[in-house]
Amino acid sequence: MNTTAPGANAAAETLSEEAVDALARAGGAPHAPAGRGAPHPHEALLSSRAANIKQSAVRDVFEISMQPGLVSLAGGNPYLQSLPLERLAATAAEIVAEHGLEALQYGGGQGTEELRTQICEVMAAEGILDADPENVVITAGSQSAQDVAAKVFCDPGDVILLEDPTYVGALNTFEAYEVDVQPVAGDEHGIIPSLLRERIAALQAEGKRIKLLYTIPNFNNPSGVMLAPERRQEIVDICREANILVLEDNPYGLLKFDGVLPEPLRAANPDDVLYLGSFSKIFAPGLRIGWALVPAHLKQRYYLASEAVTLCPPTLNQMLVSEYLRNYDWQGQIATYRALYAERCAALLEALDEFMPEGVSWTRPEGGFFVWLTLPEGIDTYPLLHEGIDAGVVFVPGAAFSAAEGPSSKLRLAFSAVPPGTLREGVRRLAPVLAKAIAAA
Amino acid sequence: MNTTAPGANAAAETLSEEAVDALARAGGAPHAPAGRGAPHPHEALLSSRAANIKQSAVRDVFEISMQPGLVSLAGGNPYLQSLPLERLAATAAEIVAEHGLEALQYGGGQGTEELRTQICEVMAAEGILDADPENVVITAGSQSAQDVAAKVFCDPGDVILLEDPTYVGALNTFEAYEVDVQPVAGDEHGIIPSLLRERIAALQAEGKRIKLLYTIPNFNNPSGVMLAPERRQEIVDICREANILVLEDNPYGLLKFDGVLPEPLRAANPDDVLYLGSFSKIFAPGLRIGWALVPAHLKQRYYLASEAVTLCPPTLNQMLVSEYLRNYDWQGQIATYRALYAERCAALLEALDEFMPEGVSWTRPEGGFFVWLTLPEGIDTYPLLHEGIDAGVVFVPGAAFSAAEGPSSKLRLAFSAVPPGTLREGVRRLAPVLAKAIAAA
Repeated sequence: MNTTAPGANAAAETLSEEAVDALARAGGAPHAPAGRGAPHPHEALLSSRAANIKQSAVRDVFEISMQPGLVSLAGGNPYLQSLPLERLAATAAEIVAEHGLEALQYGGGQGTEELRTQICEVMAAEGILDADPENVVITAGSQSAQDVAAKVFCDPGDVILLEDPTYVGALNTFEAYEVDVQPVAGDEHGIIPSLLRERIAALQAEGKRIKLLYTIPNFNNPSGVMLAPERRQEIVDICREANILVLEDNPYGLLKFDGVLPEPLRAANPDDVLYLGSFSKIFAPGLRIGWALVPAHLKQRYYLASEAVTLCPPTLNQMLVSEYLRNYDWQGQIATYRALYAERCAALLEALDEFMPEGVSWTRPEGGFFVWLTLPEGIDTYPLLHEGIDAGVVFVPGAAFSAAEGPSSKLRLAFSAVPPGTLREGVRRLAPVLAKAIAAA
Repeated sequence: MNTTAPGANAAAETLSEEAVDALARAGGAPHAPAGRGAPHPHEALLSSRAANIKQSAVRDVFEISMQPGLVSLAGGNPYLQSLPLERLAATAAEIVAEHGLEALQYGGGQGTEELRTQICEVMAAEGILDADPENVVITAGSQSAQDVAAKVFCDPGDVILLEDPTYVGALNTFEAYEVDVQPVAGDEHGIIPSLLRERIAALQAEGKRIKLLYTIPNFNNPSGVMLAPERRQEIVDICREANILVLEDNPYGLLKFDGVLPEPLRAANPDDVLYLGSFSKIFAPGLRIGWALVPAHLKQRYYLASEAVTLCPPTLNQMLVSEYLRNYDWQGQIATYRALYAERCAALLEALDEFMPEGVSWTRPEGGFFVWLTLPEGIDTYPLLHEGIDAGVVFVPGAAFSAAEGPSSKLRLAFSAVPPGTLREGVRRLAPVLAKAIAAA
């Protein structure tokens, strides 16, 4: 049991209207202190990008969802209970006792050579066979890798193309650099190449500078959608022709339930794809260790920008991941995760089949952590968050995951951290909330 | 002994001319791959800030200085040998075994409430008595806190005032945001208030937007200078009147050799100073845990920007610092460090007195890690790096620490990680190199 849950203190607060309202990603942070008169003179010191830095609905729901009694289908936490904690404790002790002067000291800005070499083995399991440790940059989770990519490539007003919906953390990071995030249409098999081509042409005709295509091809957060293998090379080719770098984010790739993995976009395209990986979903997010595999001609730029943000990744954490990869059955652990998440996903889908009212549809993911629900057009899922909490269930409203302003008739359910019986109970509580909204529409 | 030193592999390479040339901070990263013809089309994708992201001479000297046989007076590593590693190993094990589900999981973006509360106790020891844990944001070292400050406050072309010389990592971080870094003149007691006032007036007359004054008032890296207590309030007042926020970086504050600490600029000025602290010099840099104490009216902005970069600080590392602060004699450890570094500083100063040729002067710090040498005007210390390495000693040339382009007649020596006898040997090797340069000038 997680007895001292992070954010528990925040969750213990009364869940005020204000707290829920604070979840509106569209709202941003206030320019002036609430309830005051004239703004503080320091408001004039803020950068223009500061106005773009917004609250993440997912992060706040994450705290609210710790409330006792609530079923949280909100947070996409991995299920760490299946890790060998006693053994990991002994490993951590050994690192500090025997290599403490290294583990607790500054390290190289690119990350340890040992872990970069091992990361190439992890990427081989993900389908990338030619990675060179020289081109791997270890980052503070792949969030930081996204931040560095925006920093290196994007001036204000530059375009990043992305899936709609997409990862809220990436949206927030890109918008913090005043990037113009532009959605590309897709279907249940991901981005549609012909529509990508049209979108690029239209944006270029408007005089926009398109720098990156950000994509989560495997089990997109939040949609759970997997990009069809037969579309992948075409998408890279379209981007190459338009001189757009592909930013491929693949934290869930190894968590395909059947273990039969599609090739990453990066696999056959070493010069055209900047690939992001993470230990957050396959080992431990609390260590904040992710990485970027950077095309050789861009690596020095990327590495220096990363170093300018954090100096170096934490050495102790890198050594713990290295030991885990060297001495533990990490591939076996992934097999365990696949079976566990497959079972939970199946339980969630079964409960949706059983309880959901007419008019609601949802994705049927083959991996990852999330199922994406669509309500009839015109229903805004954001105010339903209140009613869901009253009914004892938390989800994340769809608007959080969209570059577009305005209401969304979608919502995200996460199955990764919740046992099957509780998933069923959560859906049972959610169903009447949605049914009432549909009836009223 | 640190048998598996970080960067050891890099250090084992032959030290080519190219490697040393790569240390030139002024050089920046190459736009096109070396030795090729046309640049890669992706060069057109780089942001304009990317051209400003430069190599850090200190970081590269850090790797070179691991070469066996060299005396490194370059890297400012803390001397971790005096930490109780066996006991810390047991603590790390206990955290993972008993609280692993928290330690290895995502946490809150601002950092744990427990550590933020304890950090207020550390700041009390530093002289800040009114800090509220609500206004503390935990960051990936104070490097990341500097990055977030630049992000929140600086548009391209905005001015950050700073000491000359100043911390190379901050220079690199600010320049990565296309900040116009402008030096303020000082003397052996730090920034001179009247000159600060003049500089602000001159820059404002030019139409510059001045956002921040970045200062390391206690034992500046690289100069070792301490800002005189009687100048401190006046400097904050000048900045307040000009609506400039003070960014006070105080990693060495507790390491004043005599333990009699001057008040931080933040102490009496909660609304006008954004204060940065770090566990890197008083505990363990490899954990990458620093913090910002943010004026209440700016805290939400700062926190959201920090979250957009790294999502959350590493939980395991925060818990290890919390245990260290709760259960260890951390103040006793600081007393140990003070005595240790005082002895080393004295040994370095004594060796300089003994060996340095006519024409070289240096600072006599009362704390911190560094002594700053000045050679006669017109001598460039950068090419002397080669000769120093040939003579078996490494230092950091002064140009690295200056916002100004062009050669510098200064250099930095670090005494923190080197025993007294080795410090003396390093100075003995350095002296003829400097004497030769002075004779030839």
